[in-house]
Amino acid sequence: MDGFQFTLLRDHNSGPRLGRLQTPRGAVDTPAFMPVGTQATVKGLTPLEVRETGAQMILANTFHLYLRPGPDVIARAGGLHRFMRWEGPILTDSGGFQVFSLARLRHLTDEGVTFRSPLDGSEHLFTPERVLDIQQQLRSDVVMPLDACLGYPLPDDQATEALRWTLLWAKRSKAHGVGDGQMLFGIVQGGFSPALRREAAERTVEVGFAGYAVGGLKVGEPRELTGELVHEVVAQLPPDRPRYLMGVGAPPDMLDGVARGVDLFDCVLPTRVARTGTIFTRQGRVNVRNAAYRDDAGPPDAQCRCVVCVQYTRGYLRHLFNTDEMLGPRLATYHNLAFLAQLLAEAREAIAADRFEPWRRDTMSTYTTSW
Amino acid sequence: MDGFQFTLLRDHNSGPRLGRLQTPRGAVDTPAFMPVGTQATVKGLTPLEVRETGAQMILANTFHLYLRPGPDVIARAGGLHRFMRWEGPILTDSGGFQVFSLARLRHLTDEGVTFRSPLDGSEHLFTPERVLDIQQQLRSDVVMPLDACLGYPLPDDQATEALRWTLLWAKRSKAHGVGDGQMLFGIVQGGFSPALRREAAERTVEVGFAGYAVGGLKVGEPRELTGELVHEVVAQLPPDRPRYLMGVGAPPDMLDGVARGVDLFDCVLPTRVARTGTIFTRQGRVNVRNAAYRDDAGPPDAQCRCVVCVQYTRGYLRHLFNTDEMLGPRLATYHNLAFLAQLLAEAREAIAADRFEPWRRDTMSTYTTSW
Repeated sequence: MDGFQFTLLRDHNSGPRLGRLQTPRGAVDTPAFMPVGTQATVKGLTPLEVRETGAQMILANTFHLYLRPGPDVIARAGGLHRFMRWEGPILTDSGGFQVFSLARLRHLTDEGVTFRSPLDGSEHLFTPERVLDIQQQLRSDVVMPLDACLGYPLPDDQATEALRWTLLWAKRSKAHGVGDGQMLFGIVQGGFSPALRREAAERTVEVGFAGYAVGGLKVGEPRELTGELVHEVVAQLPPDRPRYLMGVGAPPDMLDGVARGVDLFDCVLPTRVARTGTIFTRQGRVNVRNAAYRDDAGPPDAQCRCVVCVQYTRGYLRHLFNTDEMLGPRLATYHNLAFLAQLLAEAREAIAADRFEPWRRDTMSTYTTSW
Repeated sequence: MDGFQFTLLRDHNSGPRLGRLQTPRGAVDTPAFMPVGTQATVKGLTPLEVRETGAQMILANTFHLYLRPGPDVIARAGGLHRFMRWEGPILTDSGGFQVFSLARLRHLTDEGVTFRSPLDGSEHLFTPERVLDIQQQLRSDVVMPLDACLGYPLPDDQATEALRWTLLWAKRSKAHGVGDGQMLFGIVQGGFSPALRREAAERTVEVGFAGYAVGGLKVGEPRELTGELVHEVVAQLPPDRPRYLMGVGAPPDMLDGVARGVDLFDCVLPTRVARTGTIFTRQGRVNVRNAAYRDDAGPPDAQCRCVVCVQYTRGYLRHLFNTDEMLGPRLATYHNLAFLAQLLAEAREAIAADRFEPWRRDTMSTYTTSW
């Protein structure tokens, strides 16, 4: 873990905290949102633009890059950073979530998970060791171990069985190790029972990782339950390690995670909804395709300082989406990422000033949509 | 025509010429290629990027913008430049070509052309006066009159009939006039007979316009015939007015047009083929989807100085196209426009040094594809 350091700048043992994750490829001010660059590209944007939005770290998907272009191609290109021209830190997921959500005919054993490619039906085996080796070929900075991620609802007996695999694989991952300049996080699973989540957290911490992720949430469970489970898990995690809540990217949910002491977030939501015209605003989400915006000469979000909001009108964005023009998804994606980066920068300021809760209340008071 | 001036900097009465078209929104060094921004956007790029590629003037389509978002919306937004945020000059076509190629159930009379919208089947009438009024609402800088454009092959009697309409409408357009800060070009039609083209040119010049376009070519006729017809038309045009060859954008064809004394070009080809992975290089066109480029660590075009060629590899571009990632079309579009802008900048240098033909021969000697 040379070159990695996680420093807490403001922390009160519980609740929101301010930190800085130093990596060999630069620092990440936390709490932070990591835009998702599934296939070695944050859809529609150049790496320089992603950086401009305020993002310091991105996520890429092991599963997708393993299938296309293949880890050998990326290794020969000098690793993911050189291949896609993003100079900051990259976190790669393990592929576990995608195997369970996208692959066909998956089959779990203690050894790992066998699955068929959604692209050509070819059969593949992911073991804990193999996914770390793939991530070593990708040369990502933060590496995730293989986990078993089963969706919602999930009966306790199935959650227990999946947890057994996740913990077995966590130990093998720890023993296998990662490459030079890489940092391995653990993933806490445990389904939707607070007791099982607590146990999962304790046992993952026993294995010992450089950081901890909360996985398997935001897959359809009620929002209150998500919050409760995050709370249970975070309470078991060592304060000096970064905490990463996987799959959370809606502004209210992210601020809820921050309130519970989470440091890192990722989610496809901000970029995915952008591609169909949904933009984040301080009044909640807005779909610019709506005819009401036809003659709207105002910016996408009146309080946003991003270049899209400075340059373009809602009326023009509506026209771009209405005519299926590529520039629409591109501008909306840029704005949504810039919106989240600004929101988290404000959150960090508020934490530093010990006024996170009043700031959050104020910020959310103008929100008129559920996410 | 206040604020417009066309100056010839190098001219030998025939053959390639170097010029400068001054407009109220900036100058255009000619010969120049105008990227096509059909729906008030050059697909995938911001106006700032289009400018960065070296383009000084763009084209937008009256037909498309009339249907969506409608000229009233653009007029209320302050015109096309403000709507789309392109500050340089814009040429808008008349919609004539689109009515004939895209609209359903078109019906021509002396009055104009009635057509059904390809979007919703609604019926519309374009008259010479109406298309100028629409272009006045768009506030474009160079305005094109309604013309009758019938495709290839075209029997002489039909070409003659279409020419009658084009000339009738040209006169009515001249009489109707354009808005303040707008410049009206004439369009020379005449099908595929040199004699009819010559007559068309003479009679269009008699009406008298600020510039002249050659229309109705590159619709399937043999390349040699295109060249011959361009030659016939150009020979009839007054040397002190800009000449615009519509629909030509492949590098060899454009250089052929330059050799024959054309000043302005537009075509969807460079941007359209970019969206399926075809990039221009000094060796001819290349499709980066090809498996041969999987591990290619070289730039899209080794001699290009554009930011895409400086930053990205063919291998990465191949991956983007192979995974249907939006960034692929975007980067390829940028490169193709930058390639053409560099090619024409070199052509202008060569014309200035009276060595256009040797330069063109050298440049085309490395070309291994037909366009």
